[in-house]
Amino acid sequence: MQRYFPILDWIKTYSRETLTSDLVAAVIVTIMLIPQSLAYALLAGLPPEVGLYASILPLVVYAAFGTSRTLAVGPVAVASLMTAAAVGKLAAQGTPEYYGAAIALAFISGLMLLGMGLLRLGFIANFLSHPVISGFVTASGIIIAAGQIPHLLGISAKGETLPELLHAIWKNLGDINVFTMVLGGSAVAFLFWSRTRLKGFLLSRNVPAGLATVLTRAAPVAAVAVTTLVTAFFALEARGVAIVGTVPKGLPTPSMPPLDLALWTQIAVPALLIAIVGYVETISVAQTLAAKRRQRIDPDQELVALGACNIGSAFAGGFPVTGGFSRSVVNFDAGAQTPAAGAYTAVGMALATVFLTPALFFLPKATLAATIILAVLTLVDLGAIRRTFVYSRADGVAMGATILVTLGMGVESGILAGVALSLFLHLYRTSRPHVAIVGQVPGTEHFRNVERHDVITTPDVLTIRVDESLYFPNARFLEDFVQDRIAENKAIRHLVLMFPAVNAVDSSALESLEAILEMLKDSGVSLHLSEVKGPVMDRLRRSHFLDALTGQVFLTQYDAMLHLAPALTAQTLAAPRRETSRNGC
Amino acid sequence: MQRYFPILDWIKTYSRETLTSDLVAAVIVTIMLIPQSLAYALLAGLPPEVGLYASILPLVVYAAFGTSRTLAVGPVAVASLMTAAAVGKLAAQGTPEYYGAAIALAFISGLMLLGMGLLRLGFIANFLSHPVISGFVTASGIIIAAGQIPHLLGISAKGETLPELLHAIWKNLGDINVFTMVLGGSAVAFLFWSRTRLKGFLLSRNVPAGLATVLTRAAPVAAVAVTTLVTAFFALEARGVAIVGTVPKGLPTPSMPPLDLALWTQIAVPALLIAIVGYVETISVAQTLAAKRRQRIDPDQELVALGACNIGSAFAGGFPVTGGFSRSVVNFDAGAQTPAAGAYTAVGMALATVFLTPALFFLPKATLAATIILAVLTLVDLGAIRRTFVYSRADGVAMGATILVTLGMGVESGILAGVALSLFLHLYRTSRPHVAIVGQVPGTEHFRNVERHDVITTPDVLTIRVDESLYFPNARFLEDFVQDRIAENKAIRHLVLMFPAVNAVDSSALESLEAILEMLKDSGVSLHLSEVKGPVMDRLRRSHFLDALTGQVFLTQYDAMLHLAPALTAQTLAAPRRETSRNGC
Repeated sequence: MQRYFPILDWIKTYSRETLTSDLVAAVIVTIMLIPQSLAYALLAGLPPEVGLYASILPLVVYAAFGTSRTLAVGPVAVASLMTAAAVGKLAAQGTPEYYGAAIALAFISGLMLLGMGLLRLGFIANFLSHPVISGFVTASGIIIAAGQIPHLLGISAKGETLPELLHAIWKNLGDINVFTMVLGGSAVAFLFWSRTRLKGFLLSRNVPAGLATVLTRAAPVAAVAVTTLVTAFFALEARGVAIVGTVPKGLPTPSMPPLDLALWTQIAVPALLIAIVGYVETISVAQTLAAKRRQRIDPDQELVALGACNIGSAFAGGFPVTGGFSRSVVNFDAGAQTPAAGAYTAVGMALATVFLTPALFFLPKATLAATIILAVLTLVDLGAIRRTFVYSRADGVAMGATILVTLGMGVESGILAGVALSLFLHLYRTSRPHVAIVGQVPGTEHFRNVERHDVITTPDVLTIRVDESLYFPNARFLEDFVQDRIAENKAIRHLVLMFPAVNAVDSSALESLEAILEMLKDSGVSLHLSEVKGPVMDRLRRSHFLDALTGQVFLTQYDAMLHLAPALTAQTLAAPRRETSRNGC
Repeated sequence: MQRYFPILDWIKTYSRETLTSDLVAAVIVTIMLIPQSLAYALLAGLPPEVGLYASILPLVVYAAFGTSRTLAVGPVAVASLMTAAAVGKLAAQGTPEYYGAAIALAFISGLMLLGMGLLRLGFIANFLSHPVISGFVTASGIIIAAGQIPHLLGISAKGETLPELLHAIWKNLGDINVFTMVLGGSAVAFLFWSRTRLKGFLLSRNVPAGLATVLTRAAPVAAVAVTTLVTAFFALEARGVAIVGTVPKGLPTPSMPPLDLALWTQIAVPALLIAIVGYVETISVAQTLAAKRRQRIDPDQELVALGACNIGSAFAGGFPVTGGFSRSVVNFDAGAQTPAAGAYTAVGMALATVFLTPALFFLPKATLAATIILAVLTLVDLGAIRRTFVYSRADGVAMGATILVTLGMGVESGILAGVALSLFLHLYRTSRPHVAIVGQVPGTEHFRNVERHDVITTPDVLTIRVDESLYFPNARFLEDFVQDRIAENKAIRHLVLMFPAVNAVDSSALESLEAILEMLKDSGVSLHLSEVKGPVMDRLRRSHFLDALTGQVFLTQYDAMLHLAPALTAQTLAAPRRETSRNGC
């Protein structure tokens, strides 16, 4: 019970002090979340109020199901971009179909996450290697920032890829609206300054540190307020400054997400990608923050929680949500102690939805664009390509390719190409297990790699030590390796496969062993095994392989050699001491 | 040079004896290949002569590029079925578009194979685990056999999946043509008898073994000849027996495959699947046969050869070809010594194309259907499901799922589901590396698993031995594992990661190590490493990880403990003896 409702862990000991900490954190996060949720809704191509809707119910749901004490969920930049890309293929922006598809996307990816959580499939996130996810986020950040430039300039230019966007911007550069540009440019400059300098400035004026932090965090709200007032006062909407306009007042009416199987099939792949990318982000943030207080999070339960949040978002007319990095850090720093802080933030967002929406009428879209640009620039980490490449060329290539494909062909192609590349490189690496031909170290019962040690071998016995578990990605390798050795050396009469490091032999590898056995039979070579681990031996006994084996299974390699080349093996042993050490090099 | 033209290996020493052996083999294979190539063309939904075209140029090309001395390429059952499935989606059978798409399919999959070969990407075949390929072939065999039943009954019924086929057959059962059924039934019975009993029968009549073998192999040709004569003599085509009809006489005119990028994009996925499935079949057959004579094949060069064969097939108006199992075995048994035997077979097929086609006019399609059914029944191995399941439940499930999806949803879905399942199970297995918490064996410098041995530990030092390379599929696991241990034991002040078995640390794992380091820093625990292998250490030096490390890197775990818990560690050591053995259990 407690496993699926982590709320039961902390609700019993909830005290007045915890309440105070959580409330303070909730106020600060609410202030931050209002402009962000509006902006990300616009980024997803949805009406601004949808961003508010996605920031209420999901937070309450996370409070009940989440294992992180400080994670703040809601709309985030990358998932919003992915939503726009997925839904944009199915319907035109502004239509009810577009909105319905976005809701369905949240619902389906929620169901997928929930299913993975209940089946404990958190390891699926491993499909995304770090270079791929990092490259993908960097490229998404660039596309998002570029996509906001038209809003800053007051021109219209759309595109799913960077070249498309830049081309559209270039083409429409003549339509620049000066008022929008000044307003948007000022907002970007102010937000950039407040992010980099405001806190230092305030501290230098002897503002208390706590207040300075709060004021700094409130800078986007200030930008929203000031630009809204300016726009209203000078009637800039008449001068061509795009404004948010009427935002429906009041809470969303809960409703069933569209039950349209054809639609579900069309969005299944993007829903899965959003689910996995969102989960990877969520789990990374949650783990980082939990560690700071030596708390635990349960990765499988986080799937359940994030799934429930998305289903909740869909029922409340919202779009896909994720644990956000910056807002979770703010929540943590502001002193949130339990997920209840998230629930209080939800109350704050609900109040904003009910009372604040009329005040948003004159909010310029350029201000929201500025908010987005500042938020996503922290995602862009071009230095990581160089660092990754220096560390591992393969990983650097995977990262670079993910970035290029994402920029050039869009987010879905980018993430799919990245996953494919990761798996490809992984299979490439694992397809060549380490194997060594070994011989006896003179005077001992040790057997070592012939290439690294002065060891004794006999021409008619070949011993191959396999240093990895045998399964389908590397099964064929051993077949090729043995075949080559047998073909190039006609003197061999016995082959010993030494399995001290083989922890598993799957069906494909069993098939390869059977093929090796057949091949050796045809070549007049008998096959022996040595140092086979218990579980592997148990499993081999369930097949016919051991019955068909032309040789024997020896407990140790020394026993094998005593049997196959008795004179040579025994005479090299100076004293009758027995050692079992073997270090696998 | 010799690498890409293996023909240079054997052409120099080509003797009169080799010529004789090759010629005999070629005659036998030609006899076998004529009905098969016609039948597989029909299976692919193509005119019969296309099967002949696909059996000429590809064989000559393989003779030049192939590394197997005895592999026989040409149209095969599974690839023909996959061709029909892929092309059937794009055009109606019998149209020039259908034929053009089949040619393009051969061309594209040839280019893919050639590319993979030149880039030495043979390991891509590892994507297909043995249970998946075996299940896929079994299911394909069942679908192919079921698809031939209508031809045997003289009814028309089509379907890409088993349920569709059976339903269509059931619906049209009233249209059975008795003449076709008797003819087809007799052909099946005769072929089955000749396969199982004819050789024994001939041997019991004192026919020499060699002749008995040749006569047995010629049984399909006899069936073709007899049923053709019967049909012609009794004018059965007027009674509703479907016949092959006019087959264009003469060799195909070489022509460029259609250069249609839209078409190429549509067939890219099926082309890749045909390429990989065909390659896996080819390489298995080639390896099995090469081993019998202690010859070598080069898996990457086989990709080049098979690619060139398919490109050749496309230029000659043929469809996808593969190294066939039964015909290669026949070629081998008949004594083929070099790939020249394949070239002579091509000459035989060319002669058949020029002179034999008028004789095929009255050949009943039911006979060809009987040939196909007998050929594919050898592919169906239902016992393998049980064997695989007994050996490994996961592999058995993968196999069963592949069979069910192939039967129920068609070949492409089946193979894709199989590949996805294999990768999924593989990632699941590798996502949990073996790690152990270790302590000191009293009186020694050995450190062993605390769960298996009576060892000494101190509460403030935790040592985790990692028994596998760290890379993206398992990187997060270590993070979770460390976090859980640190969260549940607040006394820990030092964490030692012991890396004696870690052969690689990729970028994702480096990121995890950095996350662990950060997490520990926040928890006031310092991180140390011990027994790090040279190559891993070299790589870590290229990152900032070692600079940021809060602890030290120790050469041995004993050194680490001497430093972190000096009193305890040294006092347990009875005598000053030094052993370095460690067996990783």
